[in-house]
Amino acid sequence: MYRFASDYQEGCHPRILKALTQTNLEQTVGYGCDPYCDTARDLIRAAAKAPDADVHFLMGGTQANATVVSALLRPHQGVLCAETGHIAVHESGAIEATGHKVITLPSADGKLTAKQVEDFINDHYADANHEHTVQPGMVYISHPTENGTLYTRRELYDLSRICRAYHVPLYMDGARLAYALTAGGNDLTLEEIAAKVDVLCIGGTKCGALFGEAVMILKKGLKSDFRYLLKQRGGMLAKGRLLGLQFLTLFTDGLYTEIAEKANRQADKIRDALKKSEFPLLYQGNSNQIFTVVTDDILAVWNESFAFDVWGKTDKYHTVIRICTSWATDDEAVKELIDAIKNAGA
Amino acid sequence: MYRFASDYQEGCHPRILKALTQTNLEQTVGYGCDPYCDTARDLIRAAAKAPDADVHFLMGGTQANATVVSALLRPHQGVLCAETGHIAVHESGAIEATGHKVITLPSADGKLTAKQVEDFINDHYADANHEHTVQPGMVYISHPTENGTLYTRRELYDLSRICRAYHVPLYMDGARLAYALTAGGNDLTLEEIAAKVDVLCIGGTKCGALFGEAVMILKKGLKSDFRYLLKQRGGMLAKGRLLGLQFLTLFTDGLYTEIAEKANRQADKIRDALKKSEFPLLYQGNSNQIFTVVTDDILAVWNESFAFDVWGKTDKYHTVIRICTSWATDDEAVKELIDAIKNAGA
Amino acid sequence: MYRFASDYQEGCHPRILKALTQTNLEQTVGYGCDPYCDTARDLIRAAAKAPDADVHFLMGGTQANATVVSALLRPHQGVLCAETGHIAVHESGAIEATGHKVITLPSADGKLTAKQVEDFINDHYADANHEHTVQPGMVYISHPTENGTLYTRRELYDLSRICRAYHVPLYMDGARLAYALTAGGNDLTLEEIAAKVDVLCIGGTKCGALFGEAVMILKKGLKSDFRYLLKQRGGMLAKGRLLGLQFLTLFTDGLYTEIAEKANRQADKIRDALKKSEFPLLYQGNSNQIFTVVTDDILAVWNESFAFDVWGKTDKYHTVIRICTSWATDDEAVKELIDAIKNAGA
Amino acid sequence: MYRFASDYQEGCHPRILKALTQTNLEQTVGYGCDPYCDTARDLIRAAAKAPDADVHFLMGGTQANATVVSALLRPHQGVLCAETGHIAVHESGAIEATGHKVITLPSADGKLTAKQVEDFINDHYADANHEHTVQPGMVYISHPTENGTLYTRRELYDLSRICRAYHVPLYMDGARLAYALTAGGNDLTLEEIAAKVDVLCIGGTKCGALFGEAVMILKKGLKSDFRYLLKQRGGMLAKGRLLGLQFLTLFTDGLYTEIAEKANRQADKIRDALKKSEFPLLYQGNSNQIFTVVTDDILAVWNESFAFDVWGKTDKYHTVIRICTSWATDDEAVKELIDAIKNAGA
Repeated sequence: MYRFASDYQEGCHPRILKALTQTNLEQTVGYGCDPYCDTARDLIRAAAKAPDADVHFLMGGTQANATVVSALLRPHQGVLCAETGHIAVHESGAIEATGHKVITLPSADGKLTAKQVEDFINDHYADANHEHTVQPGMVYISHPTENGTLYTRRELYDLSRICRAYHVPLYMDGARLAYALTAGGNDLTLEEIAAKVDVLCIGGTKCGALFGEAVMILKKGLKSDFRYLLKQRGGMLAKGRLLGLQFLTLFTDGLYTEIAEKANRQADKIRDALKKSEFPLLYQGNSNQIFTVVTDDILAVWNESFAFDVWGKTDKYHTVIRICTSWATDDEAVKELIDAIKNAGA
Repeated sequence: MYRFASDYQEGCHPRILKALTQTNLEQTVGYGCDPYCDTARDLIRAAAKAPDADVHFLMGGTQANATVVSALLRPHQGVLCAETGHIAVHESGAIEATGHKVITLPSADGKLTAKQVEDFINDHYADANHEHTVQPGMVYISHPTENGTLYTRRELYDLSRICRAYHVPLYMDGARLAYALTAGGNDLTLEEIAAKVDVLCIGGTKCGALFGEAVMILKKGLKSDFRYLLKQRGGMLAKGRLLGLQFLTLFTDGLYTEIAEKANRQADKIRDALKKSEFPLLYQGNSNQIFTVVTDDILAVWNESFAFDVWGKTDKYHTVIRICTSWATDDEAVKELIDAIKNAGA
Repeated sequence: MYRFASDYQEGCHPRILKALTQTNLEQTVGYGCDPYCDTARDLIRAAAKAPDADVHFLMGGTQANATVVSALLRPHQGVLCAETGHIAVHESGAIEATGHKVITLPSADGKLTAKQVEDFINDHYADANHEHTVQPGMVYISHPTENGTLYTRRELYDLSRICRAYHVPLYMDGARLAYALTAGGNDLTLEEIAAKVDVLCIGGTKCGALFGEAVMILKKGLKSDFRYLLKQRGGMLAKGRLLGLQFLTLFTDGLYTEIAEKANRQADKIRDALKKSEFPLLYQGNSNQIFTVVTDDILAVWNESFAFDVWGKTDKYHTVIRICTSWATDDEAVKELIDAIKNAGA
Repeated sequence: MYRFASDYQEGCHPRILKALTQTNLEQTVGYGCDPYCDTARDLIRAAAKAPDADVHFLMGGTQANATVVSALLRPHQGVLCAETGHIAVHESGAIEATGHKVITLPSADGKLTAKQVEDFINDHYADANHEHTVQPGMVYISHPTENGTLYTRRELYDLSRICRAYHVPLYMDGARLAYALTAGGNDLTLEEIAAKVDVLCIGGTKCGALFGEAVMILKKGLKSDFRYLLKQRGGMLAKGRLLGLQFLTLFTDGLYTEIAEKANRQADKIRDALKKSEFPLLYQGNSNQIFTVVTDDILAVWNESFAFDVWGKTDKYHTVIRICTSWATDDEAVKELIDAIKNAGA
């Protein structure tokens, strides 16, 4: 049984484990104030060409999202996001638990458009009773989205322009950012992203770390007192160096990119096999997540050898599955899966 | 420079690192549903002789406390705790951020008494306007306390009796529980504790793990839906097995006890030296935290070689410091510190 | 200029003002513990044939909804409601501010169906990752709905059956309940409603009072400690007798019914005129709210003499308006409006 | 039985009832946007000589306090207040329910000093781990305090100076402000108060209105979007004109002052009688609240004719009572109470 269900089924990239092992007996101060965290912050700022950004390390994505949203909003404000957004769907109401509404906009592919955001904000203020409704206070996007799709440079720049015109901060949840930066067809660099969003979460957990997310606060006015919020929301790790060491390793010698490139290549091979066998690819995009539809008979056979993430049913006899690759995805397992795809398609 | 400032300045006990390394490439499901977590849960239940307890793993103490408190209380209820309690003082308002008041009671040594709790509850309901005040909904104690003191069996049993008589759950924050269980003079076993409290947090972070706290829910009526709350409060680790593996290791071959015994022995040696040199020991208790008062001149000398946690000032010329030991505390460093104490006392 | 924009544009029914005036100099205890409140509670319980219900008085609808929802839910639970529901749209995120998600279901007419609720709950628990999503913890319906539609007896009984089968409390927001109970075609009595919902809010503000909502808690397990929550959410009026006196008056000699019957009759006359002049009636239902579509040219003419609530645009040239009547609606004004409708239709 | 238990035991001053009656059938827009509210705002601004202040009307004090505090603070901030402060003691955790800690400072008489506030803020930032504690984000004072004491001009100016130096807004809860402005020995005008605090709540409920509090936001940077918060916290009254009419009446022809002067005069007479009969007066101050200690035997006799607020016990045989007067306090009842005091003292 080989698991293609997600990109967080193994431990971490061996170089990270090595870094943890080599430094295990060293003494450092806690709470993210150690030299490893400082170095990791510098490396991230350099990679994003954002020398003035604040960088904070948190343990997980739900925590990072709730902490950022609660840091940016006043109580009467909500966060705009695609109806498929992780914060809208899969975080057990973490945002609402901080007091804020997640305002969802329709999306077929997981992306928001600049026009949707602009129209929503204009409609809000055009309503004579807008004070009776939740004020749009920030915009959340995920990149890649939960459907594996990617914003183009044009799309992100348009969103950023609208957000800035209306003074509404733009937050990008990059839980799988590495896979976006290295996907075929991607036209956005980390530097360009950092120039256009106001807060950016650079994911570690799904990109080769044991755990950890790096939150970059790029806009000056949003920086103050974030460490209080880190602590309050449970995200300030006592042995904070564990986060510093992991991101330091990921951002040394291009490991963050290398990890994602390998995963994307494996995904490309599987995508090719699915296309050849005429299985549908549900969304555009060449990152490490693949969504397809299979008959339940085929799925039953595949499930003897492979685990996938079940995404839903299209009808009584068909299931949407997600196939996910990672730094650890085994060549042999990919070959076996491709054979299974060929057999099923025949 | 050797750091005696806290018990979380190094990585983790080598056996834990070994377990993480050996299993690194294995694939498991996420979110705490893997076999390592299951085994760790069984080991903890067995150690506490609480076969029916639910066991959940979280990443840190602030997170564990906020998740437990918000799980147990209704909106109009608060949590009773000593004025020195960690949730009252050092969690940046994490409890209040979930909507609940921390109701503090005076304490000279970090402990609450059964009488204090009983009187407070009786006074609350005797007030004709009690509905205008926060209802006491649960009791929080730490063991060892933030001052390193320990509840005796009699004290804990009395507290438990009162809490049960008034149907107010008793929650013990055992961030440093290992050190209590192994301290000289301790008369409480893990089994006895588990029989008398309703929820127990068994600390990993400060007891040899990289990170991690195990929350045992012992009372049946408090168990339902806790995993939703784990997720909502950011405490459900994607690679949950990291927590399972760490607690599995800690509860195999008595490692949890072994770690604490070593730290306590080192602390005993330092305590003895302080006594001999007539430095005051501020609180009763023989666990891994030592509180003493030194002149600022002595402290300046010591700080050339050692780091301590500064706890406050008693007057213009004297400082309260905390000396803390751990599984990693070096014999040589202890000897040097003892020498420094002797020299200062002379 | 005559205002048909809402049912809360005047003060209160003269009998209420009389009651306030006659008792103005009497001394009573505060906070809803006075004899007038007690009598009002008894009258409401008698009217609903619910002798065991708890009755609490609050000042406004948003307050009542937020207090009820926060009293009924645990932190990981959300409230199911139609996408048009008042709590979803027009309360500035009051529910989210208590930490809970409003889970919206599609609705063309403002009503939820039993099947929608059942399917949602079943889908929730069928999802292997349901702990990563908000748990449906209660159901909110409004009656009449925000569109003026009414639940039939069959619809309400079905909803109630499903809610009870799944142990999910059913809460009815009856901000305009009087108009539902007296509308043409209505087949539900107050007694039947009280037997089928778990919490019921009986509106005063929009039904002839100066202000005030009466919350009936019908299900035993939901009653405890509600007064703490009243106080905490700002709903416990110091001079609570003002609420008691108003509801006492409304539930004496059938005033609550009389007020609504008059308003509904006025609305019926306007509805007839609209039908005759072939203006569309947007939703079914014969209570005091009428929704129609007019050209902007006609609206401009009408607005010289009348104010309406603007509900939105159907296209560039047409506007949806709401026409609303009340106990105070003037016969002469109704006649003038009917004339205007005839003229516009001609 | 005559009630001296509080200043909210009757309805409202007759002039207010007259205003409500005279305007009852007029139609106005809702939610505080009607001409009566506008006029009331102008009158309040004029009375406080604060032409640029925003004025909002809310229904009650707990609601006003929670709305103001949640409007001013970010999530990691708390509100400093005396340990006797209403928000700390008697609002059922309303502040904590918005996510914020009430940070209490010791106070023997209900007042905070500038030095206490300055020391607390300095100590906070001097703590190396201040990010692990709640940040002091605003200061709450009540005037008169819950003990009936008054800030002197010097005390208020000092507090204001410190708050401004540290950029921490100063909020005054003036639930009984009228009694302070007219008390013997008071040296603070409304204009001076408005110049020195950042937000001021001018109480109506306890000063002759049926209900209602006027919140003045004096500092520019704190004004934005307050109406959203009003709505979210349940404080936006549908028939908002009821609040406008009441405050318009209170601030016409000096009624607000007249009401309080009468109450204070009655209180002065009772205070004199207590002094003559050698009953202790517990706190300084000449407003409408009197605190004294009586034997339980005397209290039993008095309670045959009078109701008081019981404030606590000093020992087994003595009770602290509060005697409270209002605009409605009856001359005859005051005489009888004075006779009873004389008799008891004899």
